[in-house]
Amino acid sequence: MFRRLLNFEEAQQVIQKYFKSKPLGVEEISLLEAHNRVLAQDITASLDIPPFNRSTVDGYALNAEDTFAAEENKPVKLKIRGITCVGERPKVKIRRGMATEIMTGAPIPEGADAVVPLEQTEKRNSSLYVYTAVTKDENVMKAGADIKKGETVLKLGKLLGSREIGVLAALGLAKVKVYKTPKVAVLSTGAEITEPGKKLLPGKIYDINTYSLSTAVLESGGKPVYMGIYPDDKVALQKALEDALAMTDMIITSGGVSVGPKDVIPQILNSLGKPGIIVCGIATKPGKPTTAALINGKPVFSLPGHPTSALLIFHLLVRPVILSMVGRNAEGGLTVKAFSATRIFPAKGRRTFVMVRLSRDKMNRLIAEPVESGLSGAITTLAKADGFFEIAENQQFIEEGEEVTVRLFSFPDFPSLQPNTL
Amino acid sequence: MFRRLLNFEEAQQVIQKYFKSKPLGVEEISLLEAHNRVLAQDITASLDIPPFNRSTVDGYALNAEDTFAAEENKPVKLKIRGITCVGERPKVKIRRGMATEIMTGAPIPEGADAVVPLEQTEKRNSSLYVYTAVTKDENVMKAGADIKKGETVLKLGKLLGSREIGVLAALGLAKVKVYKTPKVAVLSTGAEITEPGKKLLPGKIYDINTYSLSTAVLESGGKPVYMGIYPDDKVALQKALEDALAMTDMIITSGGVSVGPKDVIPQILNSLGKPGIIVCGIATKPGKPTTAALINGKPVFSLPGHPTSALLIFHLLVRPVILSMVGRNAEGGLTVKAFSATRIFPAKGRRTFVMVRLSRDKMNRLIAEPVESGLSGAITTLAKADGFFEIAENQQFIEEGEEVTVRLFSFPDFPSLQPNTL
Repeated sequence: MFRRLLNFEEAQQVIQKYFKSKPLGVEEISLLEAHNRVLAQDITASLDIPPFNRSTVDGYALNAEDTFAAEENKPVKLKIRGITCVGERPKVKIRRGMATEIMTGAPIPEGADAVVPLEQTEKRNSSLYVYTAVTKDENVMKAGADIKKGETVLKLGKLLGSREIGVLAALGLAKVKVYKTPKVAVLSTGAEITEPGKKLLPGKIYDINTYSLSTAVLESGGKPVYMGIYPDDKVALQKALEDALAMTDMIITSGGVSVGPKDVIPQILNSLGKPGIIVCGIATKPGKPTTAALINGKPVFSLPGHPTSALLIFHLLVRPVILSMVGRNAEGGLTVKAFSATRIFPAKGRRTFVMVRLSRDKMNRLIAEPVESGLSGAITTLAKADGFFEIAENQQFIEEGEEVTVRLFSFPDFPSLQPNTL
Repeated sequence: MFRRLLNFEEAQQVIQKYFKSKPLGVEEISLLEAHNRVLAQDITASLDIPPFNRSTVDGYALNAEDTFAAEENKPVKLKIRGITCVGERPKVKIRRGMATEIMTGAPIPEGADAVVPLEQTEKRNSSLYVYTAVTKDENVMKAGADIKKGETVLKLGKLLGSREIGVLAALGLAKVKVYKTPKVAVLSTGAEITEPGKKLLPGKIYDINTYSLSTAVLESGGKPVYMGIYPDDKVALQKALEDALAMTDMIITSGGVSVGPKDVIPQILNSLGKPGIIVCGIATKPGKPTTAALINGKPVFSLPGHPTSALLIFHLLVRPVILSMVGRNAEGGLTVKAFSATRIFPAKGRRTFVMVRLSRDKMNRLIAEPVESGLSGAITTLAKADGFFEIAENQQFIEEGEEVTVRLFSFPDFPSLQPNTL
């Protein structure tokens, strides 16, 4: 347990050291459920694709050698033997002097080694006149030409989207091994917090963090588990945390850490299992009251009560842990370059994260305008902040017009970025 | 019904005209399910936020006037009356000469109009010594300071992410009106197509499009409904399409349109309802065999059988319709600027879409390298193509090194874009 405030990098390192950032486990699921999941296996083709020599045109399959003498004015004459349709095992064997009608995508019959396109031929009764020479394999896609049996097609760690799932289907896989989705318990603490939809009694405010953080868990690939609201009552909270540890893979609480006399979460966390609290406050602004614990192998994060601060610390410290659990590289998040709208001073000696709203100036440059993030505007801050940039501990200030790197809370927040900035 | 091939813009216009791009309908859902849904109502605050005057510090609530004479060396003395905790209705009324202990976030009791911070006071028995003057409203966040009752906080059409859902919770909303999710039937046609997981008989290949297109439907905000595979058998296919029309809001088929003698989909579509087929082939490469129909108000798209072509046309023509149904502006998709790796000639007289893989050259510039997209590499094309760019009908070619705008199939496909290009 660390008694002094850690700086931001120390907190990151302690979290990485204790949580050993690794996937939670592997499960096999149906291909239709695999969207946005991460491959937990290399995918090796168990068959050639295509699985057979295949015609790439409508025409006649034949021996290329039979056509070598063919010219536009001097066709060669062959005997027609049946028709080979798509999806059927060929019913004919082709010997010299013979041809079979074939459709695009149909398998090349035994004995044939090329296809002459329909428009280069003329059929008269059971005779075929071929007006052009074709070479061996012409208009034939050989078995394995697309993918060879044994070839590794997708690698472990690949995030599965529409294209990857199409590739898995092509290989005949109905199921696929992916990393498990962590269940993440989300609960809010604080005597003043009320569940949305219920009557608001005097002195109370509605719960925000359970909802914003549950959604952020979803956006990171986890499954949020709603645990509700707990006043700063040690017994109820301890029971809730014990239940959450039994049912889920990770816990996120918010609020109730820096509230003075009723601040019970750290005591409970240290009583629940080993090693207990590993980060107890960080030298950042905002985010100072952030606590991280490891209890019987499960990460527990206690985030600030202020909604935007909670979401910020989620993005900086919690999301990377969830991404590791689902097998995704802890991506740095989506960033854009922008110019600071004003001169901004950081908090002394603390890593400062500045919430900003993005807009464009007359020259169409991207401008980052700080959004007030104090207690005085919790919800407007949440609604307005497109993302944040950071100021280092040893930096005096960010100058007006200075270029900063803004990390976005999520991509769809700012679709107008697309045409010009990407 | 249009007999000639439409060009790309004509096809877009016909689709927009007939499908009247509008949301499918409205439903009310729980906030915890609202992620990635679109608001179907303006959200107006039904309460002030905060709902009451609130202390922003731990300290004592009192009348500011009582402190005006206070100095560091000459404190004023007040009577302490109880404590006002977070989440509680204040139990005291504050009159001149009185102060109540108050916690950060707790409501200001009646009669008090300011809070003096704890560290500027000293408590002796039931007396409080105040060592600084505070002004009216100092350390008080007034009711409605964040959001005023009646204020419009989020607008109809807003895509709901973690921040927006937090804002809805703050307003006490447990449910929210969003646009309905369209159910989209997805089926593949073709005598050669086999369901993944089943044994592959001679001449057959595995179904790709049902899987890649179902996932693309999900990625667009629709709910795919698996309808399976239909050989080009008119009776079975007609029954499947009738079932799909009864059960779902939209149908996507692939394959089976340009297969010559067994091409039955257009006949069936025109027999099922009015107006029937509205686009019958488009002058694009790839994508020529694309068919669109409107049957009793429901869109039916028949896409090419080639997997990458099907996915391309999905992105160009189908995704915008799904986005309209879920209330999202038909976004143009995520694009990046890149340099063409080679000179590329378009198909004559047709809008040409070139599948490309993105990479970086030694100067860290983004390079778009064409991926062969013919019949000869259906799966490797699908696996390799990060996106596509287009060449206009009247353009001779794209020069090697020319800048092109590449539309990505999906964002996570190319995370390495982030640091430098955004």
